[in-house]
Amino acid sequence: MDLESKFSDISKTLKGSAVRELLKYAEQPDVISFGGGMPNPKSFPIENIKEILNNIMDNYGTKALQYGTTEGVTELREQIAKRMKDKFSISTNPSNIIVLNGSQSGLYMVSKVFLNRGDYVISEAPTYVGAISAFNAQMPSWLTVELKEDGMDLNELDAKIKKAINEKKVPKFIYVIPTFQNPAGLTWSVDKRKHLLEIASKYDLIIFEDDPYSEIRFTGDPVMPIKYYDKEDRVIYMGTFSKVLSPGIRLGWVVSNEAITRKIALLKQGVDLCTNVFSQYIALEYLRSGMIDKQIPKIVELYRKKRDLMLKSLEESMPEGVTWTRPNGGMFLWVTVDWGLDTEKLLKKALENKVAYVVGTAFYPDGRGRNSMRLNFTYSRDEDIVEGIGRLGKAIKEEIKNKN
Amino acid sequence: MDLESKFSDISKTLKGSAVRELLKYAEQPDVISFGGGMPNPKSFPIENIKEILNNIMDNYGTKALQYGTTEGVTELREQIAKRMKDKFSISTNPSNIIVLNGSQSGLYMVSKVFLNRGDYVISEAPTYVGAISAFNAQMPSWLTVELKEDGMDLNELDAKIKKAINEKKVPKFIYVIPTFQNPAGLTWSVDKRKHLLEIASKYDLIIFEDDPYSEIRFTGDPVMPIKYYDKEDRVIYMGTFSKVLSPGIRLGWVVSNEAITRKIALLKQGVDLCTNVFSQYIALEYLRSGMIDKQIPKIVELYRKKRDLMLKSLEESMPEGVTWTRPNGGMFLWVTVDWGLDTEKLLKKALENKVAYVVGTAFYPDGRGRNSMRLNFTYSRDEDIVEGIGRLGKAIKEEIKNKN
Repeated sequence: MDLESKFSDISKTLKGSAVRELLKYAEQPDVISFGGGMPNPKSFPIENIKEILNNIMDNYGTKALQYGTTEGVTELREQIAKRMKDKFSISTNPSNIIVLNGSQSGLYMVSKVFLNRGDYVISEAPTYVGAISAFNAQMPSWLTVELKEDGMDLNELDAKIKKAINEKKVPKFIYVIPTFQNPAGLTWSVDKRKHLLEIASKYDLIIFEDDPYSEIRFTGDPVMPIKYYDKEDRVIYMGTFSKVLSPGIRLGWVVSNEAITRKIALLKQGVDLCTNVFSQYIALEYLRSGMIDKQIPKIVELYRKKRDLMLKSLEESMPEGVTWTRPNGGMFLWVTVDWGLDTEKLLKKALENKVAYVVGTAFYPDGRGRNSMRLNFTYSRDEDIVEGIGRLGKAIKEEIKNKN
Repeated sequence: MDLESKFSDISKTLKGSAVRELLKYAEQPDVISFGGGMPNPKSFPIENIKEILNNIMDNYGTKALQYGTTEGVTELREQIAKRMKDKFSISTNPSNIIVLNGSQSGLYMVSKVFLNRGDYVISEAPTYVGAISAFNAQMPSWLTVELKEDGMDLNELDAKIKKAINEKKVPKFIYVIPTFQNPAGLTWSVDKRKHLLEIASKYDLIIFEDDPYSEIRFTGDPVMPIKYYDKEDRVIYMGTFSKVLSPGIRLGWVVSNEAITRKIALLKQGVDLCTNVFSQYIALEYLRSGMIDKQIPKIVELYRKKRDLMLKSLEESMPEGVTWTRPNGGMFLWVTVDWGLDTEKLLKKALENKVAYVVGTAFYPDGRGRNSMRLNFTYSRDEDIVEGIGRLGKAIKEEIKNKN
């Protein structure tokens, strides 16, 4: 069968990468991998979930096993609305909320609602690798704007929007992860959050705010989501249960105005009909019982120690010229190798030393990022963090030596 | 905000329909609805699931709550391969199987792998409404071929393929539901299954076989899936746990060659990353324990009675000129109203009489089907089947009277 000619244009573009092939070695048991984006299994509220499962079968039974509405279980959407109010003073209501299969599905659905092939989408540089995959499925054009210590370079943003509009190509939305950004671990200042809204207002653009980590704060004062400052209803907000409950149950949600929510729902009928109903009842009980508020401090405590340990290990193991971010929360930090080293080439050396990371290029839609890497500090055991960063330091030193 | 100009072309095409608005009335508690496509809650193996949930938390714990691979839990794919062999003598292996969020996701992903905007896709007429939504998300052109008592009109199929090829537009795939078809309840003969493969071979086309119901057979001899007769690896086969376990846990699977499986997986990384892991362990235990083989006969027995009851009620309640199919399995039958009645208009009268169905036009991508409707016989209570068909007969008689 002549298969190649039958594939759609988008599926023709999808190919495995050399780096992805290399990362298969990262799954070997003797390799310490900082490459994944996984919560620590110790963060899962196992006992709570056991209790919840019994409740679900006794109280909801067949309802939790049946098809559900495309928008999601109403009581769960009510609980999410309540939490958005309690935690972030964001007023919304269930009809503005749609529950999806993890926030990955939110990235996909929102981009499908707005992007035609070739449309401009704006993101931070670097940005989340999963957003790149999701948006690329619509074959858009990318405008990326440098992420500074306190948020996007907003002068660069303004200039790039102007240029696009002059080309008669109005960007469709600005995608940002303003709190404990993935991959960089950085957090936007309040000033920049407000300024971004002003720019979006000036050019009549949508902001797509991805907020998976803001409840996982170790240090520093809480910052409200951009959605909190949004007076013109131009922010689409996305949250997830993956970091505060479990990623395996695949639940995220999108808050937007009713016209957008409706478009997402109409598309979703074709894409996957409805989100896992059983999982939705687990999340509902987790919120309603208040278990979530007992669990989050435990997760924060667990991850704070791991972050501290990784920062300390980096201080001890890295040669001069290597720098990294110091996140106040979330799951990742970003290492820059100021040695003209190529982290894709370095990965081979790292794997020889039995340690793995994600190369910086994965986080740029345009192939930049060759002198950087993302490290996850939440998944590994404490002793592996120390040992793994030691190995990574050794690999970098060897590679510098080879280069000279 | 000027929202309308920001929507993508596909999302601009998505609008709620008048019929869908009408169907909101079908949710009122005093309306008997044959409109849904839901399994009966009594078909869910509640006690099995309770046992399984305890096993999962004790034996898999955190693994069931963590992210999983995009292709799905390996042990589940092994169990699915085993079942394909045991039930249908189809030899496959885990690397040819990808687990998805219900078969709706399979419809979407397969169509996204193959269809560019404007590409031809071929289906039976009528065909599954969810396939129409999924495929339409890629904005294809439709070629529909009449479904006869024993399968597609294969002369019409051949002629339509020839014509398309003459236009230099080779169809991408032929979508069929050959066993207890949704909506018609009809089953393809073995001869037609083989003949379809010959046609697909002659024109080098892919067949996409959707097989949600073949294990739900009440009467007649089992017929093997088209995939069983496939010597050239041109059939993509799709199964689901929605009818034999639970639709709320959203699990389906696609069997195809490794090149196609890989494309689906690469796309899925952007669409939803991975399928619900917790649900996958439920399905794994359901298969591995053999509980499924004890449950299916119960489901068959439950639905056989309901089918018989609906057929009997139709005999008793319908005026001359109304005809219907007599399915040997599955969940639906198809009613044709040979009175020049329009089932969209009739629906208003039916709802006045507190009974609902899905209008035939929902199952044609081109607006045909106005003299037909789909009835679900699995969901309603026995007494509601009798009462509801009585009300429907009354509504049809009233409508005929009004017309004359």
